[in-house]
Amino acid sequence: MSNLTRQQFSELLSQRVLFLDGAYGTELFKRGYIKNREPIELLNITNPDAVLSLQTDYVNAGVDFLLTNTFSANRHKLMKLGYDQYFGEINRAAVKIAKEAAKTSDKPVYVLGDISSVGEMIEPLGELKSKYVYNIFEEQVEALVEAGVDGIIIETMSDIKEAKLAYLAAREVAPNLPILVSMTFEENSVAVTGTSLELYVALFNDLDVDVIGINCTLTPDKMVPLVRKLAGLSKKPIFAEPNAGKPVLSSDDRLTYKTTPEEFTVYVEDYVELGANIVGGCCGTGPEHIKYMVQHIGLKKPKTRKINQLDVITSRVHMFNVEPFLIVGERINASAKKKLHNEIREFNFEHVLKLAKSQEQEGAHAIDLNFGIESVLLEEHFSKVIVELDRIVSIPISFDIQHNEFLESALIEYPGRPLINSSKALPEELDKKVKLLKKYGGLLVVLAMGKEIPKTAEERYELGRRAIEYLEIQGIDRSRIFVDPLVLPIGANQDYSVTLDTIRMLSNDGIRTILGLSNFSFGMPNRDELNASFLALAMHSGLSAAILNTSEELTMRILRGMKRILGKEASQFGEEIKSSEL
Amino acid sequence: MSNLTRQQFSELLSQRVLFLDGAYGTELFKRGYIKNREPIELLNITNPDAVLSLQTDYVNAGVDFLLTNTFSANRHKLMKLGYDQYFGEINRAAVKIAKEAAKTSDKPVYVLGDISSVGEMIEPLGELKSKYVYNIFEEQVEALVEAGVDGIIIETMSDIKEAKLAYLAAREVAPNLPILVSMTFEENSVAVTGTSLELYVALFNDLDVDVIGINCTLTPDKMVPLVRKLAGLSKKPIFAEPNAGKPVLSSDDRLTYKTTPEEFTVYVEDYVELGANIVGGCCGTGPEHIKYMVQHIGLKKPKTRKINQLDVITSRVHMFNVEPFLIVGERINASAKKKLHNEIREFNFEHVLKLAKSQEQEGAHAIDLNFGIESVLLEEHFSKVIVELDRIVSIPISFDIQHNEFLESALIEYPGRPLINSSKALPEELDKKVKLLKKYGGLLVVLAMGKEIPKTAEERYELGRRAIEYLEIQGIDRSRIFVDPLVLPIGANQDYSVTLDTIRMLSNDGIRTILGLSNFSFGMPNRDELNASFLALAMHSGLSAAILNTSEELTMRILRGMKRILGKEASQFGEEIKSSEL
Ligand SMILES: [Zn+2]
Ligand SMILES: [Zn+2]
Ligand SMILES: [Zn+2]
Repeated sequence: MSNLTRQQFSELLSQRVLFLDGAYGTELFKRGYIKNREPIELLNITNPDAVLSLQTDYVNAGVDFLLTNTFSANRHKLMKLGYDQYFGEINRAAVKIAKEAAKTSDKPVYVLGDISSVGEMIEPLGELKSKYVYNIFEEQVEALVEAGVDGIIIETMSDIKEAKLAYLAAREVAPNLPILVSMTFEENSVAVTGTSLELYVALFNDLDVDVIGINCTLTPDKMVPLVRKLAGLSKKPIFAEPNAGKPVLSSDDRLTYKTTPEEFTVYVEDYVELGANIVGGCCGTGPEHIKYMVQHIGLKKPKTRKINQLDVITSRVHMFNVEPFLIVGERINASAKKKLHNEIREFNFEHVLKLAKSQEQEGAHAIDLNFGIESVLLEEHFSKVIVELDRIVSIPISFDIQHNEFLESALIEYPGRPLINSSKALPEELDKKVKLLKKYGGLLVVLAMGKEIPKTAEERYELGRRAIEYLEIQGIDRSRIFVDPLVLPIGANQDYSVTLDTIRMLSNDGIRTILGLSNFSFGMPNRDELNASFLALAMHSGLSAAILNTSEELTMRILRGMKRILGKEASQFGEEIKSSEL
Repeated sequence: MSNLTRQQFSELLSQRVLFLDGAYGTELFKRGYIKNREPIELLNITNPDAVLSLQTDYVNAGVDFLLTNTFSANRHKLMKLGYDQYFGEINRAAVKIAKEAAKTSDKPVYVLGDISSVGEMIEPLGELKSKYVYNIFEEQVEALVEAGVDGIIIETMSDIKEAKLAYLAAREVAPNLPILVSMTFEENSVAVTGTSLELYVALFNDLDVDVIGINCTLTPDKMVPLVRKLAGLSKKPIFAEPNAGKPVLSSDDRLTYKTTPEEFTVYVEDYVELGANIVGGCCGTGPEHIKYMVQHIGLKKPKTRKINQLDVITSRVHMFNVEPFLIVGERINASAKKKLHNEIREFNFEHVLKLAKSQEQEGAHAIDLNFGIESVLLEEHFSKVIVELDRIVSIPISFDIQHNEFLESALIEYPGRPLINSSKALPEELDKKVKLLKKYGGLLVVLAMGKEIPKTAEERYELGRRAIEYLEIQGIDRSRIFVDPLVLPIGANQDYSVTLDTIRMLSNDGIRTILGLSNFSFGMPNRDELNASFLALAMHSGLSAAILNTSEELTMRILRGMKRILGKEASQFGEEIKSSEL
């Protein structure tokens, strides 16, 4: 049987609810194959029949997919346990065994290369470097793909950044294979690292994954609300794999899982009712759970789901609704600050972090990052600062980075759905940004200008409108784009009505607008009076967002006043969106 | 010869430059008729031939007008000197003598009843009550009119309030006679009481006087700049009467005036060049000055003048340009302040005056006066507070008084060009306000409502536009009218765009608008944020003025910001207009 293509996978998903297998670790332990601290993946080479037997049981239970027994078989984890010399052998054997088991079925059973955490934290939560972790995942995916898997499943991730790195590696190695990604959450829908289910889905909705899932940690009943939430937010097909109850210590000192196949199936049936496309079991589930589940659910068309747009920008731990008005703090801008620029060159981010923290406290929803002259900087300046910001501040980043390679270095490190600021409305520039948006997710600011800034509102509007159309054809929805109508300094040019008219015309077309507000008052005294006043006019014209000086109390208060006047003071406005509100 | 009608006087003024006579006091003194401290007016009955002789000299010198020898012949002044028992006799004799002298000419010579100060200060500068002073003037005008004068000349006034009271009395007694009014100024164009020539003209331009003049105090050369200013500001025909130089003490201990008839005439010819309609002489001038002047000037058509609109509201000592934006302080408003209202009832204006002072310091251009429930108040509450405000604050008043009799009591006391706030756009209400505007001068706020507030902008605009037309037909120029488009509390009604649209439509027609800004935020928290934001929108729509809370720093700063954005930060904006700038 030839490999599953993404297209075939997608068709399969649309036809019926599909089944994953159950646990390997707990089941092989129960069957008495696990000794001491040996990784269960070692069995792939020391006792392949044990693995084959379990997988054959899963095939007999009726699964559509077998996972390779490679959960911990990345080089970093094997190394920690002292088995990294077997890395290649273990992964190849795992695929071979799974494919052998799959062949015992008379219906197609596909083999997914199973990948999980490297077992140590990445910066800033731990010490590991992203690049290193990316390479670890890349190596394992390559091994699994070379051995002939039908797809990759990245599961039981608790750090969104690690999940993202694993995904990036997998998609890079296997552009044409289905990739399933799954994180694991506590009962409150938040991963132990602080990332909520919403934040996770907001990012992965943008990425080129085939299925978004949740697995492990929770008992089947406790996972129901999370599946409901996932079903309401994921733009991709979804999957879920609960544990078979909480592990309890039995009289013979072994961990056992108490959920019966019948009870397990009751809740998994709920998942299917909520719209799950793929279901299976995690820790504590065995062939009996899967068999009962497959029999009871049988052939079912997936339910149609009603999806609420996650119209947000996110960091690792916070998200802000883009509507009704997004406030981006402008003050990390080294273009005119020589001292700050020099500090950045010396990797001294103290001042940058302080500015970030202040803006967060002043009410920014995101922090614009502009390092000024980039020709004297290195990729490391950008990757490093993102790690440091992730450590210090909770709010999202607006990437105001000119060079695409620097921008990409920063985006790789970023554990959320960012704002990319900005692209001119020129196809060649937009193309580059589309590539980044598709790879890393996020929202984009498009400047209403080509090589030059048009003089009239009609021209700026046309540039903006055409850019939106161009981006939508390439799959970037207009909800992910802000057009910056541009405002010139009032000191140099009195025709600010061009800006207001452009905003109004774009707004009438349902196109979002963002303004670099302070440019209006450039070079003038009492800038806050000009900025705040102009903000009122721009908001009245339909402005959706602004990059502004959050330390200007006047501006922030007028922003509040205008929100109230425009009836945009929704309760969640300008605040972190609590999971409970979704 | 029958009396001069106003129409005939006006025709005469348009035909040629007219001549007044010269001094009485200094001339009769020179001729040796003045003894001790006797008023020269006593001569009318003790030595009528002396007066007749001088007046005949003036007639022979070629004057068009003789002034009656009644400068100090008001009852108050006569009483102070101990001659009030001769009041009637003196005034009647004066007219009789002047008419007799006039008859000696073969061209028409008209007799103007001469009136000047009561010689003691009126409240708040002194102790006299307005009503008393009004009665003094009324009595003298009645005496002069009954005796058959052709007109009234009110001259050498140094208190604008006294000039206004004299004018009101004269016009009341003599609705069909020409009235000439003249104040006297120092070299800096400011009267000793602090009122500038501009302030004087701004008020009297609105009043039903026939000619506006300046006289006395200055030598002919020093009066040239004042005549230039008067010529550039007065909408009425103008006149000027300088002194014949500064009085000097001669060797025989007599005051003499040194300006020769030739020198006198050189400068008076300048006045004519600048557009003076009537010229004559004050202290120190005699028949020889007048004769030389008449001969040299001869028959001349008055020069056409270019007039700069005095588009201002004024107090006794300050004026504010209505353009580009007028700020009226709202905080003297007892309608919802029981304590303040009770204080006012008890004639305790301490709090009112404190609020006035604060608002002046906060940048108000005028102070709105709203005493709340008026049914429990007396006329004295209104007249008294105006006197007290005149004493304490320098900025103009906006008369937010419901009952017309109370409003009129306040207007009588007011030494400037006020804002009258307000009238509904109903003919019967407008008619009453027109009467007051014509009698006391000033500007009017017309509410864009009839019996009810229209729901749509089109209806409000129509009411405003038609009110303007109605008022213009009655001679009230649109520069004297603000239309209030009305704004409802946002808490009760979200349709503030009706207000903005009404402003825009009126503004497009060149109609000024004013808004009671704080009504927008009535009942809401953080009112300043709503007020300031809405002010920005309203100003962008074309708002010309606002009644607002000047203690809201946010609002005042947005006002500044919007002025800058709209290019309305003219140097004189929001500041007292200095004489030197006009
Ligand atoms: Zn698990
Ligand atoms: Zn698992
Ligand atoms: Zn004089």
